[in-house]
Amino acid sequence: MCTSTVEPSVRGVPLSVSGDEAVADLLGVLSYGALVAFDNLGADARLAPDLRRRAALSEMAAAELVHYRRLADRLAELGVDAVDAMEPFVPSLDAYHTSTRPRDWLEGLVKAHVGDGIADDFYREVAAHLAEPDRSLVLEVLHDDRHASFAVAEVRAAVEADPVLADRLGLWARRLVAEAITQAQLVVAARPRLVELVEPSGLAGLAALIDRLTTGHAARLSALGLRS
Amino acid sequence: MCTSTVEPSVRGVPLSVSGDEAVADLLGVLSYGALVAFDNLGADARLAPDLRRRAALSEMAAAELVHYRRLADRLAELGVDAVDAMEPFVPSLDAYHTSTRPRDWLEGLVKAHVGDGIADDFYREVAAHLAEPDRSLVLEVLHDDRHASFAVAEVRAAVEADPVLADRLGLWARRLVAEAITQAQLVVAARPRLVELVEPSGLAGLAALIDRLTTGHAARLSALGLRS
Repeated sequence: MCTSTVEPSVRGVPLSVSGDEAVADLLGVLSYGALVAFDNLGADARLAPDLRRRAALSEMAAAELVHYRRLADRLAELGVDAVDAMEPFVPSLDAYHTSTRPRDWLEGLVKAHVGDGIADDFYREVAAHLAEPDRSLVLEVLHDDRHASFAVAEVRAAVEADPVLADRLGLWARRLVAEAITQAQLVVAARPRLVELVEPSGLAGLAALIDRLTTGHAARLSALGLRS
Repeated sequence: MCTSTVEPSVRGVPLSVSGDEAVADLLGVLSYGALVAFDNLGADARLAPDLRRRAALSEMAAAELVHYRRLADRLAELGVDAVDAMEPFVPSLDAYHTSTRPRDWLEGLVKAHVGDGIADDFYREVAAHLAEPDRSLVLEVLHDDRHASFAVAEVRAAVEADPVLADRLGLWARRLVAEAITQAQLVVAARPRLVELVEPSGLAGLAALIDRLTTGHAARLSALGLRS
Protein backbone atom coordinates (compact mmCIF):
# COMPACT_ATOMS: atom_id res chain seq x y z
CA MET A 1 0.00 0.00 0.00
CA CYS A 2 2.71 2.42 0.90
CA THR A 3 4.49 2.26 -2.44
CA SER A 4 1.40 2.69 -4.65
CA THR A 5 0.31 6.07 -5.97
CA VAL A 6 -3.01 7.19 -4.55
CA GLU A 7 -4.99 10.37 -4.85
CA PRO A 8 -6.51 11.11 -1.49
CA SER A 9 -8.77 14.07 -0.98
CA VAL A 10 -8.57 15.78 2.39
CA ARG A 11 -10.97 18.59 3.24
CA GLY A 12 -11.90 18.70 -0.44
CA VAL A 13 -8.36 19.48 -1.58
CA PRO A 14 -7.28 16.91 -4.18
CA LEU A 15 -3.75 15.68 -3.63
CA SER A 16 -1.49 13.73 -5.88
CA VAL A 17 1.11 12.01 -3.77
CA SER A 18 2.85 8.68 -3.71
CA GLY A 19 2.83 6.51 -0.58
CA ASP A 20 6.63 6.82 -0.53
CA GLU A 21 6.29 10.53 0.09
CA ALA A 22 3.86 9.86 2.92
CA VAL A 23 6.36 7.39 4.44
CA ALA A 24 9.08 10.05 4.20
CA ASP A 25 6.72 12.45 5.99
CA LEU A 26 6.10 9.88 8.69
CA LEU A 27 9.82 9.19 9.16
CA GLY A 28 10.41 12.96 9.13
CA VAL A 29 7.94 13.67 11.93
CA LEU A 30 9.31 10.72 13.91
CA SER A 31 12.88 12.00 13.38
CA TYR A 32 12.08 15.46 14.61
CA GLY A 33 10.08 13.96 17.47
CA ALA A 34 13.15 11.95 18.53
CA LEU A 35 15.40 15.01 18.30
CA VAL A 36 12.99 17.05 20.42
CA ALA A 37 12.51 14.21 22.91
CA PHE A 38 16.30 14.06 23.27
CA ASP A 39 16.35 17.78 23.95
CA ASN A 40 13.46 17.70 26.42
CA LEU A 41 14.65 14.67 28.37
CA GLY A 42 18.07 16.31 28.55
CA ALA A 43 16.48 19.46 29.99
CA ASP A 44 14.37 17.35 32.37
CA ALA A 45 17.52 15.58 33.55
CA ARG A 46 18.74 18.96 34.78
CA LEU A 47 15.64 19.17 37.02
CA ALA A 48 16.44 15.84 38.65
CA PRO A 49 16.59 15.91 42.44
CA ASP A 50 19.82 13.88 42.54
CA LEU A 51 22.72 12.63 40.42
CA ARG A 52 21.34 9.08 40.16
CA ARG A 53 18.05 10.23 38.64
CA ARG A 54 19.88 12.75 36.46
CA ALA A 55 22.09 9.99 35.02
CA ALA A 56 19.10 7.70 34.45
CA LEU A 57 17.15 10.35 32.54
CA SER A 58 20.24 11.40 30.56
CA GLU A 59 20.58 7.81 29.34
CA MET A 60 16.98 7.79 28.19
CA ALA A 61 17.58 11.08 26.37
CA ALA A 62 20.58 9.58 24.57
CA ALA A 63 18.47 6.57 23.50
CA GLU A 64 16.24 9.02 21.58
CA LEU A 65 19.24 10.08 19.52
CA VAL A 66 19.91 6.47 18.59
CA HIS A 67 16.35 6.38 17.25
CA TYR A 68 16.94 9.63 15.41
CA ARG A 69 20.05 8.16 13.73
CA ARG A 70 18.18 5.03 12.59
CA LEU A 71 15.34 7.10 11.12
CA ALA A 72 17.79 9.48 9.39
CA ASP A 73 19.67 6.51 7.91
CA ARG A 74 16.43 5.06 6.54
CA LEU A 75 15.48 8.43 5.05
CA ALA A 76 18.90 8.57 3.38
CA GLU A 77 18.22 5.10 1.87
CA LEU A 78 14.98 6.54 0.48
CA GLY A 79 16.99 9.41 -1.03
CA VAL A 80 15.54 11.95 1.41
CA ASP A 81 17.62 14.34 3.49
CA ALA A 82 16.60 14.03 7.16
CA VAL A 83 16.67 17.78 7.72
CA ASP A 84 14.39 18.37 4.71
CA ALA A 85 12.04 15.66 5.97
CA MET A 86 11.91 17.20 9.46
CA GLU A 87 11.49 20.87 8.53
CA PRO A 88 7.70 20.82 7.86
CA PHE A 89 7.06 19.51 11.38
CA VAL A 90 9.27 21.94 13.29
CA PRO A 91 6.62 24.66 13.85
CA SER A 92 3.88 22.40 15.22
CA LEU A 93 6.15 20.24 17.41
CA ASP A 94 7.98 23.30 18.74
CA ALA A 95 4.66 25.02 19.45
CA TYR A 96 3.50 21.99 21.45
CA HIS A 97 6.69 21.87 23.50
CA THR A 98 6.91 25.63 24.04
CA SER A 99 3.34 25.71 25.33
CA THR A 100 3.92 22.75 27.67
CA ARG A 101 7.27 23.40 29.31
CA PRO A 102 7.44 21.42 32.59
CA ARG A 103 8.06 23.56 35.67
CA ASP A 104 9.54 20.75 37.72
CA TRP A 105 10.84 17.21 37.71
CA LEU A 106 7.43 15.53 38.12
CA GLU A 107 5.73 17.60 35.42
CA GLY A 108 8.58 16.58 33.10
CA LEU A 109 8.04 12.90 33.87
CA VAL A 110 4.26 13.13 33.44
CA LYS A 111 4.71 14.96 30.16
CA ALA A 112 7.17 12.44 28.78
CA HIS A 113 5.07 9.48 29.93
CA VAL A 114 1.67 10.79 28.82
CA GLY A 115 2.89 12.38 25.60
CA ASP A 116 5.17 9.50 24.58
CA GLY A 117 2.44 7.02 25.49
CA ILE A 118 -0.14 8.54 23.14
CA ALA A 119 2.47 9.00 20.41
CA ASP A 120 3.62 5.38 20.74
CA ASP A 121 0.07 4.01 20.60
CA PHE A 122 -0.55 6.13 17.54
CA TYR A 123 2.62 5.10 15.70
CA ARG A 124 2.02 1.46 16.59
CA GLU A 125 -1.30 1.70 14.75
CA VAL A 126 0.32 3.45 11.80
CA ALA A 127 3.06 0.81 11.62
CA ALA A 128 0.43 -1.88 11.03
CA HIS A 129 -0.30 -0.23 7.66
CA LEU A 130 3.35 0.02 6.56
CA ALA A 131 5.42 -2.34 4.44
CA GLU A 132 8.77 -3.63 5.65
CA PRO A 133 11.38 -2.45 6.54
CA ASP A 134 9.52 0.65 7.71
CA ARG A 135 7.04 -1.29 9.80
CA SER A 136 9.77 -2.82 11.97
CA LEU A 137 11.72 0.43 12.09
CA VAL A 138 8.76 2.42 13.40
CA LEU A 139 8.01 -0.25 16.03
CA GLU A 140 11.65 -0.33 17.10
CA VAL A 141 11.99 3.42 17.61
CA LEU A 142 9.01 3.61 19.97
CA HIS A 143 9.95 4.81 23.43
CA ASP A 144 11.87 2.75 25.85
CA ASP A 145 9.87 0.75 28.42
CA ARG A 146 12.54 1.71 30.94
CA HIS A 147 11.35 5.27 30.79
CA ALA A 148 7.72 4.28 31.36
CA SER A 149 8.56 2.18 34.45
CA PHE A 150 10.82 4.91 35.78
CA ALA A 151 8.19 7.64 35.34
CA VAL A 152 5.40 5.54 36.81
CA ALA A 153 7.42 4.65 39.91
CA GLU A 154 8.54 8.26 40.51
CA VAL A 155 5.14 9.90 39.97
CA ARG A 156 3.16 7.24 41.88
CA ALA A 157 5.37 7.54 44.94
CA ALA A 158 5.11 11.35 44.94
CA VAL A 159 1.34 11.37 44.37
CA GLU A 160 0.61 8.81 47.09
CA ALA A 161 2.50 11.02 49.54
CA ASP A 162 0.61 14.18 48.51
CA PRO A 163 -2.99 14.15 47.18
CA VAL A 164 -2.86 17.88 46.28
CA LEU A 165 -0.03 17.01 43.91
CA ALA A 166 -2.30 14.40 42.27
CA ASP A 167 -4.81 17.15 41.43
CA ARG A 168 -2.16 19.46 40.03
CA LEU A 169 -0.53 16.74 37.90
CA GLY A 170 -3.95 15.51 36.74
CA LEU A 171 -4.75 19.01 35.42
CA TRP A 172 -1.31 19.14 33.82
CA ALA A 173 -1.97 15.85 31.99
CA ARG A 174 -5.30 17.19 30.67
CA ARG A 175 -3.58 20.32 29.37
CA LEU A 176 -0.91 18.21 27.65
CA VAL A 177 -3.51 16.15 25.80
CA ALA A 178 -5.46 19.23 24.70
CA GLU A 179 -2.28 20.86 23.36
CA ALA A 180 -1.19 17.64 21.66
CA ILE A 181 -4.54 17.33 19.85
CA THR A 182 -4.32 20.95 18.65
CA GLN A 183 -0.83 20.41 17.30
CA ALA A 184 -1.63 17.03 15.75
CA GLN A 185 -4.40 18.75 13.76
CA LEU A 186 -1.86 21.32 12.54
CA VAL A 187 0.52 18.51 11.50
CA VAL A 188 -2.21 16.87 9.46
CA ALA A 189 -3.23 20.23 7.96
CA ALA A 190 0.40 20.81 6.89
CA ARG A 191 0.79 17.28 5.52
CA PRO A 192 -2.65 15.89 4.67
CA ARG A 193 -1.15 12.85 2.90
CA LEU A 194 -0.17 11.53 6.36
CA VAL A 195 -3.86 10.70 6.90
CA GLU A 196 -3.55 8.06 4.20
CA LEU A 197 -1.02 6.22 6.38
CA VAL A 198 -2.89 6.74 9.61
CA GLU A 199 -6.22 5.28 8.68
CA PRO A 200 -6.68 4.00 5.14
CA SER A 201 -10.23 2.93 5.98
CA GLY A 202 -11.37 6.54 6.28
CA LEU A 203 -13.05 8.71 8.88
CA ALA A 204 -15.03 5.91 10.56
CA GLY A 205 -11.71 4.16 11.18
CA LEU A 206 -10.28 7.41 12.54
CA ALA A 207 -13.01 7.66 15.18
CA ALA A 208 -12.30 4.12 16.35
CA LEU A 209 -8.58 4.93 16.43
CA ILE A 210 -9.17 8.00 18.63
CA ASP A 211 -11.26 5.80 20.91
CA ARG A 212 -8.40 3.32 21.31
CA LEU A 213 -5.90 6.14 21.98
CA THR A 214 -8.21 7.59 24.66
CA THR A 215 -8.50 4.23 26.40
CA GLY A 216 -4.72 3.81 26.45
CA HIS A 217 -4.30 7.32 27.80
CA ALA A 218 -6.77 6.71 30.65
CA ALA A 219 -4.93 3.50 31.59
CA ARG A 220 -1.62 5.38 31.75
CA LEU A 221 -3.05 8.12 33.96
CA SER A 222 -4.47 5.53 36.31
CA ALA A 223 -1.06 3.79 36.50
CA LEU A 224 0.46 7.15 37.50
CA GLY A 225 -2.13 7.49 40.26
CA LEU A 226 -3.91 10.36 38.46
CA ARG A 227 -7.57 10.71 37.50
CA SER A 228 -8.42 11.03 33.82
CA MET B 1 51.17 -0.56 38.92
CA CYS B 2 47.54 0.34 39.28
CA THR B 3 46.63 -2.72 41.30
CA SER B 4 49.50 -2.47 43.81
CA THR B 5 49.12 -0.68 47.12
CA VAL B 6 51.29 2.39 47.34
CA GLU B 7 51.63 5.08 49.93
CA PRO B 8 52.06 8.36 48.14
CA SER B 9 52.65 11.55 50.03
CA VAL B 10 51.06 14.65 48.57
CA ARG B 11 51.83 18.03 50.13
CA GLY B 12 53.37 16.17 53.06
CA VAL B 13 50.12 14.36 53.91
CA PRO B 14 50.74 10.60 53.97
CA LEU B 15 48.02 8.67 52.20
CA SER B 16 47.26 5.01 52.29
CA VAL B 17 45.38 4.10 49.16
CA SER B 18 45.34 1.26 46.71
CA GLY B 19 45.81 1.90 43.00
CA ASP B 20 42.37 0.40 42.47
CA GLU B 21 40.84 3.25 44.40
CA ALA B 22 42.73 5.75 42.28
CA VAL B 23 41.44 4.00 39.14
CA ALA B 24 37.89 4.25 40.50
CA ASP B 25 38.49 7.98 41.07
CA LEU B 26 39.75 8.35 37.52
CA LEU B 27 36.76 6.50 36.07
CA GLY B 28 34.51 8.56 38.36
CA VAL B 29 35.81 11.90 37.14
CA LEU B 30 35.64 10.66 33.53
CA SER B 31 32.04 9.47 34.09
CA TYR B 32 30.92 12.78 35.48
CA GLY B 33 32.83 14.56 32.74
CA ALA B 34 30.91 12.55 30.12
CA LEU B 35 27.57 13.28 31.81
CA VAL B 36 28.34 17.00 31.93
CA ALA B 37 29.63 17.01 28.34
CA PHE B 38 26.35 15.38 27.29
CA ASP B 39 24.46 18.11 29.11
CA ASN B 40 26.56 20.95 27.70
CA LEU B 41 26.57 19.74 24.11
CA GLY B 42 22.82 19.28 24.39
CA ALA B 43 22.46 22.88 25.57
CA ASP B 44 24.85 24.05 22.83
CA ALA B 45 22.73 22.24 20.25
CA ARG B 46 19.87 24.54 21.24
CA LEU B 47 22.05 27.52 20.23
CA ALA B 48 22.62 26.09 16.75
CA PRO B 49 21.78 28.46 13.89
CA ASP B 50 19.90 25.74 11.98
CA LEU B 51 18.36 22.28 12.27
CA ARG B 52 21.25 20.55 10.48
CA ARG B 53 23.83 21.85 12.95
CA ARG B 54 21.49 21.20 15.85
CA ALA B 55 21.10 17.55 14.79
CA ALA B 56 24.87 17.15 14.33
CA LEU B 57 25.66 18.51 17.79
CA SER B 58 22.86 16.48 19.39
CA GLU B 59 24.43 13.32 17.99
CA MET B 60 27.79 14.25 19.50
CA ALA B 61 26.07 14.87 22.83
CA ALA B 62 24.49 11.42 22.71
CA ALA B 63 27.90 9.86 22.02
CA GLU B 64 29.04 11.19 25.42
CA LEU B 65 26.32 9.18 27.10
CA VAL B 66 27.57 6.02 25.41
CA HIS B 67 30.94 6.78 27.01
CA TYR B 68 29.25 7.37 30.34
CA ARG B 69 27.55 3.98 30.14
CA ARG B 70 30.83 2.16 29.37
CA LEU B 71 32.58 3.84 32.29
CA ALA B 72 29.67 3.12 34.65
CA ASP B 73 29.68 -0.55 33.57
CA ARG B 74 33.41 -0.81 34.28
CA LEU B 75 32.94 0.80 37.70
CA ALA B 76 30.21 -1.76 38.43
CA GLU B 77 32.67 -4.54 37.51
CA LEU B 78 35.08 -3.03 40.05
CA GLY B 79 32.27 -3.11 42.63
CA VAL B 80 31.92 0.69 42.66
CA ASP B 81 28.63 2.51 42.19
CA ALA B 82 29.01 5.09 39.41
CA VAL B 83 27.10 7.77 41.33
CA ASP B 84 29.33 7.29 44.39
CA ALA B 85 32.41 7.49 42.15
CA MET B 86 31.18 10.71 40.50
CA GLU B 87 30.00 12.61 43.60
CA PRO B 88 33.44 13.91 44.74
CA PHE B 89 33.98 15.59 41.37
CA VAL B 90 30.60 17.29 41.05
CA PRO B 91 31.51 20.57 42.83
CA SER B 92 34.70 21.30 40.85
CA LEU B 93 33.34 20.27 37.43
CA ASP B 94 30.09 22.16 38.03
CA ALA B 95 32.05 25.23 39.17
CA TYR B 96 34.09 25.14 35.95
CA HIS B 97 31.02 24.88 33.76
CA THR B 98 28.98 27.46 35.68
CA SER B 99 31.80 29.98 35.39
CA THR B 100 32.26 29.32 31.65
CA ARG B 101 28.75 29.21 30.22
CA PRO B 102 28.92 29.96 26.47
CA ARG B 103 26.84 32.94 25.37
CA ASP B 104 26.48 31.79 21.79
CA TRP B 105 27.02 28.97 19.34
CA LEU B 106 30.67 29.77 18.57
CA GLU B 107 31.66 30.14 22.22
CA GLY B 108 30.10 26.73 22.83
CA LEU B 109 32.13 25.16 20.02
CA VAL B 110 35.38 26.79 21.18
CA LYS B 111 34.74 25.66 24.73
CA ALA B 112 34.02 22.08 23.74
CA HIS B 113 36.99 21.93 21.39
CA VAL B 114 39.55 23.63 23.66
CA GLY B 115 38.34 22.03 26.88
CA ASP B 116 37.87 18.54 25.43
CA GLY B 117 41.22 18.83 23.68
CA ILE B 118 43.17 19.49 26.87
CA ALA B 119 41.18 16.86 28.77
CA ASP B 120 41.81 14.27 26.03
CA ASP B 121 45.54 14.98 25.90
CA PHE B 122 45.65 14.67 29.66
CA TYR B 123 43.71 11.39 29.85
CA ARG B 124 45.77 9.95 26.99
CA GLU B 125 48.87 10.48 29.13
CA VAL B 126 47.17 8.98 32.17
CA ALA B 127 46.06 5.95 30.16
CA ALA B 128 49.70 5.10 29.39
CA HIS B 129 50.18 4.35 33.10
CA LEU B 130 47.10 2.14 33.43
CA ALA B 131 46.78 -1.63 33.20
CA GLU B 132 44.25 -3.24 30.87
CA PRO B 133 41.27 -3.15 30.46
CA ASP B 134 41.23 0.38 31.85
CA ARG B 135 43.91 1.66 29.51
CA SER B 136 41.88 0.79 26.41
CA LEU B 137 38.65 1.96 28.00
CA VAL B 138 40.06 5.41 28.80
CA LEU B 139 41.47 5.76 25.27
CA GLU B 140 38.17 4.68 23.75
CA VAL B 141 36.04 7.20 25.67
CA LEU B 142 38.10 10.18 24.54
CA HIS B 143 36.11 12.66 22.51
CA ASP B 144 34.97 12.01 19.05
CA ASP B 145 37.18 13.30 16.19
CA ARG B 146 33.97 14.23 14.40
CA HIS B 147 33.36 16.91 16.96
CA ALA B 148 36.85 18.36 16.56
CA SER B 149 36.56 18.60 12.76
CA PHE B 150 33.09 20.08 13.06
CA ALA B 151 34.17 22.73 15.59
CA VAL B 152 37.31 23.65 13.64
CA ALA B 153 35.41 24.09 10.37
CA GLU B 154 32.66 26.21 11.99
CA VAL B 155 34.93 28.47 14.04
CA ARG B 156 37.54 28.92 11.29
CA ALA B 157 34.95 30.02 8.77
CA ALA B 158 33.40 32.50 11.20
CA VAL B 159 36.75 33.91 12.32
CA GLU B 160 38.08 34.35 8.79
CA ALA B 161 34.98 36.39 7.97
CA ASP B 162 35.32 38.59 11.09
CA PRO B 163 38.72 39.40 12.72
CA VAL B 164 37.05 41.10 15.73
CA LEU B 165 35.43 37.78 16.47
CA ALA B 166 38.89 36.17 16.47
CA ASP B 167 39.96 38.52 19.28
CA ARG B 168 36.83 37.86 21.32
CA LEU B 169 37.06 34.07 20.93
CA GLY B 170 40.82 34.15 21.65
CA LEU B 171 40.12 35.88 24.98
CA TRP B 172 37.37 33.37 25.67
CA ALA B 173 39.78 30.47 25.10
CA ARG B 174 42.29 32.01 27.54
CA ARG B 175 39.58 32.36 30.19
CA LEU B 176 38.56 28.73 29.68
CA VAL B 177 42.09 27.48 30.25
CA ALA B 178 42.56 29.62 33.36
CA GLU B 179 39.30 28.31 34.84
CA ALA B 180 40.13 24.74 33.89
CA ILE B 181 43.51 24.95 35.67
CA THR B 182 41.88 26.35 38.82
CA GLN B 183 39.33 23.55 38.89
CA ALA B 184 41.88 20.83 38.06
CA GLN B 185 43.83 21.93 41.13
CA LEU B 186 40.67 21.60 43.23
CA VAL B 187 40.08 18.10 41.82
CA VAL B 188 43.58 17.04 42.83
CA ALA B 189 43.19 18.68 46.25
CA ALA B 190 39.96 16.71 46.78
CA ARG B 191 41.49 13.45 45.53
CA PRO B 192 45.29 13.62 45.93
CA ARG B 193 45.70 9.92 45.08
CA LEU B 194 44.83 10.82 41.47
CA VAL B 195 48.33 12.34 41.20
CA GLU B 196 49.75 8.85 41.51
CA LEU B 197 48.03 7.90 38.26
CA VAL B 198 48.82 11.12 36.47
CA GLU B 199 52.56 11.18 36.85
CA PRO B 200 54.18 8.37 38.82
CA SER B 201 57.60 9.87 38.16
CA GLY B 202 56.85 12.86 40.40
CA LEU B 203 56.87 16.62 40.08
CA ALA B 204 59.58 16.83 37.39
CA GLY B 205 57.40 14.59 35.23
CA LEU B 206 54.40 16.81 35.99
CA ALA B 207 56.18 19.91 34.65
CA ALA B 208 56.98 18.09 31.41
CA LEU B 209 53.37 16.94 31.19
CA ILE B 210 52.08 20.51 31.57
CA ASP B 211 54.49 21.54 28.82
CA ARG B 212 53.10 18.92 26.46
CA LEU B 213 49.51 19.93 27.27
CA THR B 214 50.35 23.59 26.56
CA THR B 215 51.85 22.71 23.18
CA GLY B 216 48.76 20.72 22.22
CA HIS B 217 46.51 23.57 23.32
CA ALA B 218 48.43 26.14 21.22
CA ALA B 219 48.14 23.87 18.17
CA ARG B 220 44.37 23.61 18.63
CA LEU B 221 43.95 27.37 18.94
CA SER B 222 45.94 27.87 15.79
CA ALA B 223 43.76 25.33 13.94
CA LEU B 224 40.71 27.35 15.02
CA GLY B 225 42.31 30.50 13.61
CA LEU B 226 42.85 31.99 17.11
CA ARG B 227 46.03 33.30 18.70
CA SER B 228 47.30 31.61 21.85
